[in-house]
Amino acid sequence: MIKAGIIGATGYAGGELVRILTAHKDVEIKWYGSRSYIDKKYAEVYQNMFQIVEDSCLDDNMEELSRQVDVIFTATPQGLCASLINEEILSRTKIVDLSADFRIKDVETYEKWYKITHPSPQFISEAVYGLCEINRDAVKKARLVANPGCYPTCTTLSIYPLLKEGLIDPDTIIVDAKSGTSGAGRGAKVDNLFCEVNENIKAYGVATHRHTPEIEEQLGYAAGRPVLINFTPHLVPMNRGILITAYASLTRDVSAEEVKAVYDKYYASEKFVRVLEQDVCPQTKWVEGSNYVDVNFKIDPRTKRVIMMGAMDNLVKGAAGQAVQNMNLMFGLKESEGLELVPMFP
Amino acid sequence: MIKAGIIGATGYAGGELVRILTAHKDVEIKWYGSRSYIDKKYAEVYQNMFQIVEDSCLDDNMEELSRQVDVIFTATPQGLCASLINEEILSRTKIVDLSADFRIKDVETYEKWYKITHPSPQFISEAVYGLCEINRDAVKKARLVANPGCYPTCTTLSIYPLLKEGLIDPDTIIVDAKSGTSGAGRGAKVDNLFCEVNENIKAYGVATHRHTPEIEEQLGYAAGRPVLINFTPHLVPMNRGILITAYASLTRDVSAEEVKAVYDKYYASEKFVRVLEQDVCPQTKWVEGSNYVDVNFKIDPRTKRVIMMGAMDNLVKGAAGQAVQNMNLMFGLKESEGLELVPMFP
Amino acid sequence: MIKAGIIGATGYAGGELVRILTAHKDVEIKWYGSRSYIDKKYAEVYQNMFQIVEDSCLDDNMEELSRQVDVIFTATPQGLCASLINEEILSRTKIVDLSADFRIKDVETYEKWYKITHPSPQFISEAVYGLCEINRDAVKKARLVANPGCYPTCTTLSIYPLLKEGLIDPDTIIVDAKSGTSGAGRGAKVDNLFCEVNENIKAYGVATHRHTPEIEEQLGYAAGRPVLINFTPHLVPMNRGILITAYASLTRDVSAEEVKAVYDKYYASEKFVRVLEQDVCPQTKWVEGSNYVDVNFKIDPRTKRVIMMGAMDNLVKGAAGQAVQNMNLMFGLKESEGLELVPMFP
Amino acid sequence: MIKAGIIGATGYAGGELVRILTAHKDVEIKWYGSRSYIDKKYAEVYQNMFQIVEDSCLDDNMEELSRQVDVIFTATPQGLCASLINEEILSRTKIVDLSADFRIKDVETYEKWYKITHPSPQFISEAVYGLCEINRDAVKKARLVANPGCYPTCTTLSIYPLLKEGLIDPDTIIVDAKSGTSGAGRGAKVDNLFCEVNENIKAYGVATHRHTPEIEEQLGYAAGRPVLINFTPHLVPMNRGILITAYASLTRDVSAEEVKAVYDKYYASEKFVRVLEQDVCPQTKWVEGSNYVDVNFKIDPRTKRVIMMGAMDNLVKGAAGQAVQNMNLMFGLKESEGLELVPMFP
Repeated sequence: MIKAGIIGATGYAGGELVRILTAHKDVEIKWYGSRSYIDKKYAEVYQNMFQIVEDSCLDDNMEELSRQVDVIFTATPQGLCASLINEEILSRTKIVDLSADFRIKDVETYEKWYKITHPSPQFISEAVYGLCEINRDAVKKARLVANPGCYPTCTTLSIYPLLKEGLIDPDTIIVDAKSGTSGAGRGAKVDNLFCEVNENIKAYGVATHRHTPEIEEQLGYAAGRPVLINFTPHLVPMNRGILITAYASLTRDVSAEEVKAVYDKYYASEKFVRVLEQDVCPQTKWVEGSNYVDVNFKIDPRTKRVIMMGAMDNLVKGAAGQAVQNMNLMFGLKESEGLELVPMFP
Repeated sequence: MIKAGIIGATGYAGGELVRILTAHKDVEIKWYGSRSYIDKKYAEVYQNMFQIVEDSCLDDNMEELSRQVDVIFTATPQGLCASLINEEILSRTKIVDLSADFRIKDVETYEKWYKITHPSPQFISEAVYGLCEINRDAVKKARLVANPGCYPTCTTLSIYPLLKEGLIDPDTIIVDAKSGTSGAGRGAKVDNLFCEVNENIKAYGVATHRHTPEIEEQLGYAAGRPVLINFTPHLVPMNRGILITAYASLTRDVSAEEVKAVYDKYYASEKFVRVLEQDVCPQTKWVEGSNYVDVNFKIDPRTKRVIMMGAMDNLVKGAAGQAVQNMNLMFGLKESEGLELVPMFP
Repeated sequence: MIKAGIIGATGYAGGELVRILTAHKDVEIKWYGSRSYIDKKYAEVYQNMFQIVEDSCLDDNMEELSRQVDVIFTATPQGLCASLINEEILSRTKIVDLSADFRIKDVETYEKWYKITHPSPQFISEAVYGLCEINRDAVKKARLVANPGCYPTCTTLSIYPLLKEGLIDPDTIIVDAKSGTSGAGRGAKVDNLFCEVNENIKAYGVATHRHTPEIEEQLGYAAGRPVLINFTPHLVPMNRGILITAYASLTRDVSAEEVKAVYDKYYASEKFVRVLEQDVCPQTKWVEGSNYVDVNFKIDPRTKRVIMMGAMDNLVKGAAGQAVQNMNLMFGLKESEGLELVPMFP
Repeated sequence: MIKAGIIGATGYAGGELVRILTAHKDVEIKWYGSRSYIDKKYAEVYQNMFQIVEDSCLDDNMEELSRQVDVIFTATPQGLCASLINEEILSRTKIVDLSADFRIKDVETYEKWYKITHPSPQFISEAVYGLCEINRDAVKKARLVANPGCYPTCTTLSIYPLLKEGLIDPDTIIVDAKSGTSGAGRGAKVDNLFCEVNENIKAYGVATHRHTPEIEEQLGYAAGRPVLINFTPHLVPMNRGILITAYASLTRDVSAEEVKAVYDKYYASEKFVRVLEQDVCPQTKWVEGSNYVDVNFKIDPRTKRVIMMGAMDNLVKGAAGQAVQNMNLMFGLKESEGLELVPMFP
């Protein structure tokens, strides 16, 4: 039995980790960390866990935690994991960090976009970017995994094959993203009140969203050179789900069959990436509650662009599910263990 | 491996059966019946099942089906199961009927409320009303289980203990129910369009809803005499969930502790009925996707009434989940097999 | 031109006052009071008012305000209006108080349910309860109007005729109410976040909601004797709208026609109360954005009860619209001036 | 009093025409055309109109209608208006066609995208494209106005100034659009059921949506040469609202101030186009129920692109409101008559 601790267990991503790990046959949660709810019963914070989780919340003591568990998940805002981590802790326990602290290899880029000083840059190089479908082998050997951001996961998986194969021009990539509101977290803000979000849609963080450099770094690896993109997220009146619609110019005439073949080359044997049938557009509802990413594309012969689409559950493949997928790899378990969640519809 | 067939597999309840049975370790679905989609791939009707279910839809041939499977689920409108069933079929296979055909023992009552002639009244008496928490032993021995309606399940479980113990006056029961829209089915009707349901709430079937006699019959068993109630369902702009708020006059002064003790007497050892802590009101979101019913109550000393509340997922405990719970009992499996679904929040 | 000031202009009810008064041909808003947003442009708080309202927010100085305007609307939590008001102010300006401070005639009842000491009980007796359809003449002469609560408005109008005419037993009244989330205000609370409310329904304030004594007082006037009721509000995932479903035992056999005639007797000439056609259930969407209350009923001959239903927009007839209706009466304007708002569908 | 007739009065756009015209002081609706509901009271189809509209629905007889009214609105699917219209009718009455029949000047383009033969191409050249802000003078003199599509209205107004002024490269325009579900109409289709749309987002009509050539034609006028774009609409779980997010490469270095000045040049004196303050992103909720289009932009210096955003209510400025704006111009009324609708929030 793998012993797991969660720092930030009462945010939405933390709650989803609890939902998934509770049903994971090889894992036992030993620590429900939550600075705001110390000593409160976890099931009083998330009443869905009544009679399922009996524990109370504990504080964010990563030092102590590392002595008690085999793996720590940090589902907290940027800066916290990097400020708590040290070599001793890493020598005792594995860490899956759901924050952005170790996702970006260039510390200056991180500090510029996140507007904080990185507290422990010495661990950046060893951290593995936990996009399992692409970095599977490195994840298996990692002590520290930087769990990808929600938008970067969906975007990278949707674009990666065509970019890697040189079918699209890296200078023309535009990503228009749409997210459910759980991505905004459980903080009590007027902007996230029901009445402000319901019956409404808006763009936010236009040309400034922090997931931009993360996406650009990953796409850069595929392109073999630096990539700059436009990335515009939108807030959608739904709880869960991310849909990305990405545009790029094709580098040559291709048929739908060729493009499909490229996607299949990368994903045919991937359990969690489903390349849909021709002309079927991904919908977030079809992956809700599951670890799937549904991807597809459409060629526009008039403009010689391709439209790439991807849909996933931002709390599962975009956060907790992918974190567990990484954990499975790090501990040599079956990659899909605890993640064979059938999407819920409707 | 139990072989299962579903008649009506492309309705919402049928889809939920597929979701649950797909993850049930002892069951294999052999027949996806759907009159409207014969020969169409099931995963094209419910795209969430892409790469999970490979089969195509078949017709409603219960005769043929009974030769191929161990259990048939009928998730179809009233009248169909009763018109297809016969002794031969029942001798070969077990049936869990999710329609109303065999729920009401008095055939005249059925015919009056449903305005159809019952096609096979000879099976009514042997059919077991599959409210597992109350009729567990009978279910275990049944060939034919009448899976309870969604409203009756939530209502009966919320009221049963207090009525059975004589704490409330049977002549004063009023049930005000609220349901998500999946309860209205997947038929293409203007009334169920997004724009008609969203940002809206209404009562429907006031004083005439067909679940009324079903609830009355079950409450009558608890009271030991006929019971008449007021039952008013409402349509709520959400996909899943039923909440019932029931009112009754107390027959004597009781404390909250006494009432709690009565609920505990019936449900403390029931996995799927959670009696909440004092003053915590059930919320549908806390049980979404799971087989739980959350119940609680509040005494109003001013009016000497008790308000009883229950929340559940109408497609799980209110339909497919309870059907699988019944199947588990009928086949001697662990009652919760395949049903240990952790509620999804948010 | 009537000069109006609003204290609490940046809450949802305050915002609705601004929406309605902006289009009112006889009124000019001179004061947008908002303690939290002093000196901020009103249109930055409510961006819908961009290029419509140019003013900035001011503080809650009722003293100063009373020198500048003809009417003050207080759309603030309980206690504030009562703590600011005095005879001098009232001698200079009329007040429509949207809070509960002057709704309840018995100060002890107010203090018990609201758990505060009433700061100015001397004005309670002169305050007129502004349910225009019932107290029209008194409103016309009032200096101080207590604008009714949202639930009390909908409930009282739905039940009043039958109770007044002795058709229902006052001891049997049960009110099950459902409200959109704007009723919970614009305060930043976790409970009102999109993800907590969406896809969810719950009861709250069971047997303790503060609108209970207000409803009981009004129903008491109709019954001619004290009335105790059960009142249970529910939070519904929609922005606007209140639906009440009320139950009571009939005192004698009546036909639907007789009951309809009673409703018509009270409301046939009322512009803002629409008695629907037989068997048509009120829906909140049909009154959205308007000052209408739609009411109807259904007799259940089996239980000898009547189910009374009412739907309205909680921010209009339940708050700002009714406040303007009261203002119109107080200033001798046409009662419907500025309120001929056609409901928006969908 | 202008007498108006509506063909297609029971669709959502038709219903919105009724809502707006009912409150228009210079207009009287004489004909509620609805093939599906002939002889049914209009207020039974749209219950919000109870006690406001007393008329019953009539058929689609444009011949007869043209003898009775001064203006006909056709709010029907493509092909119908063009098949009913003739010179006699046009000589007697003005027509505002909300369908696509007369929007596209090149009949081959129309026939290719709409896959129907145009029944009356002889009227295409005289028809005026009713985007009032751009074609105001022509509209004033028109007998036949082609009311713009919802997406084209929002898109064109958002992009027009920068394209016209040569600030963006016409070959790089990508439009990612998001619409509420009322845009899909009131037809009873499974895809538009509440449970299918709620908690879901998807793209549709990718690279094939019929509004594409309409947008391209209008942008072509601004650019002074043919323009090809990518246009991708998405279905959002809300009733009303369109948001477009458009991307284009800047043709030279410009400051935010310069771009703002260009927008102001075109829209400073336009009542219904609001250019928002710097960095404020348009939100559909801020224009709900009103005739406003809110536009804004953001320069991305990294990619040398500009992101242009526009939000409006698809049923008002995107359909019925703009139709009334056109009618006002055609009849020499104040352009905003009946359209001074304050957006409703929340």
